[in-house]
Amino acid sequence: MHIAFDADDTLWHNESVFSLTQKKITEILTSHTRPGPDGDAGHDSLEARLLETERRNLGLFGYGVKGFTLSMIETALDVSQGTVPASVIRQILEAGKAMLEHPVELLPGVEETVKALAERHPLMLVTKGDLFDQESKIARSGLSELFSVIEIVSEKDAATYQRVLRRHSIAPERFVMVGNSVKSDILPVLAIGGNAVHVPYHTTWALEVVEHKGAAQEGFWEIQVMSELPAVLDRIAAQGWNPGAQR
Amino acid sequence: MHIAFDADDTLWHNESVFSLTQKKITEILTSHTRPGPDGDAGHDSLEARLLETERRNLGLFGYGVKGFTLSMIETALDVSQGTVPASVIRQILEAGKAMLEHPVELLPGVEETVKALAERHPLMLVTKGDLFDQESKIARSGLSELFSVIEIVSEKDAATYQRVLRRHSIAPERFVMVGNSVKSDILPVLAIGGNAVHVPYHTTWALEVVEHKGAAQEGFWEIQVMSELPAVLDRIAAQGWNPGAQR
Repeated sequence: MHIAFDADDTLWHNESVFSLTQKKITEILTSHTRPGPDGDAGHDSLEARLLETERRNLGLFGYGVKGFTLSMIETALDVSQGTVPASVIRQILEAGKAMLEHPVELLPGVEETVKALAERHPLMLVTKGDLFDQESKIARSGLSELFSVIEIVSEKDAATYQRVLRRHSIAPERFVMVGNSVKSDILPVLAIGGNAVHVPYHTTWALEVVEHKGAAQEGFWEIQVMSELPAVLDRIAAQGWNPGAQR
Repeated sequence: MHIAFDADDTLWHNESVFSLTQKKITEILTSHTRPGPDGDAGHDSLEARLLETERRNLGLFGYGVKGFTLSMIETALDVSQGTVPASVIRQILEAGKAMLEHPVELLPGVEETVKALAERHPLMLVTKGDLFDQESKIARSGLSELFSVIEIVSEKDAATYQRVLRRHSIAPERFVMVGNSVKSDILPVLAIGGNAVHVPYHTTWALEVVEHKGAAQEGFWEIQVMSELPAVLDRIAAQGWNPGAQR
């Protein structure tokens, strides 16, 4: 059985760090927001403006803190109609740096569970985002030695998982992906005939939210906390693999 | 024979795009530079200030355009003592985006040479930098299909090359790295007993040849343009591999 973990919001807190920073910066920006030539300020909330900027820049910046920081700066320039003082830009820059230096806080049950599983199975880490930032967080997590394979990818879709599995000669039916994102960790893995265990995180980034409903299918499992994973893996092994993979 | 290429400034122009942007932004910043509390403005050139900021942020941002853009913004805040107008921050942001969208311009001889070699050898791409940006450039280069292995790494040192070679079961003496950076493409590969072909970027090659004298050791080769590579590979194959690897 090849067990792969997502990293951000599966092994450690991440989105909460983004959310806190976003909350702080949008509070600061409130007093600098100015109506545009067509008087449309206040039409959307600052959160919505920031999200819109992030979405527009995703194809250029990809995922990660540096792109998020640049999008916050762009939002500040936009909503202030170019009147934002340099001191606010400085605050955004420092907030971005603080995110990059933020301690990696493991989620409950992660350390014990991953350590125990590593003694019985080869473990993989498959994570999306900024290469440098992800490597830094993996190193700081203290878990890096427990993974025999670490793959940092720019997008987690079915093609990516297929490439990773082929590279390591793993049959999809013997592959279990564990992660918090239905869009990135669950649906693409089910689509290629693998097994996926969903561990929801309390906050999901708006750009990662997908319709959940149809996901209850063969190969899909859900747990509330990482310490429930070994029992689910036992059930997966006992019941056989995702039958979708046999077709 | 396993032939690996560096990407930026080996297959396509990169540093020239950074330099042009830096020149443009430092010109804009000249009129916004203010003396600090200790009156130290003008002590260092703007280029030196920017380089110092980049160096300081390297451990946090890693390599790539997004980190460079954030460092340019930080330099603007620093040298202006926080008086830089939002319009200049906007210009820096737009310059960063323009770099990310900049067309990938292949260096002379690259397309023909890489295409011809791909018919006879498995080719690898080993490049350092921002994952998302590098993938985007590889895709836009039109060369991506010619490489059987693409490795995007955060640092190119001996340990990195050892990991890549081990992952693909390649003996160092059968590995040839082709790149423009002595630090990243040549010395670490020679250190692990591989072969390295240096293709200096730009016009200062005559000076570099002299500086490089100490690097002339077994396994080291130098060419002026990519189209000279096949002949060097023939010589490497005829003369045998880097004997350092046999020890």
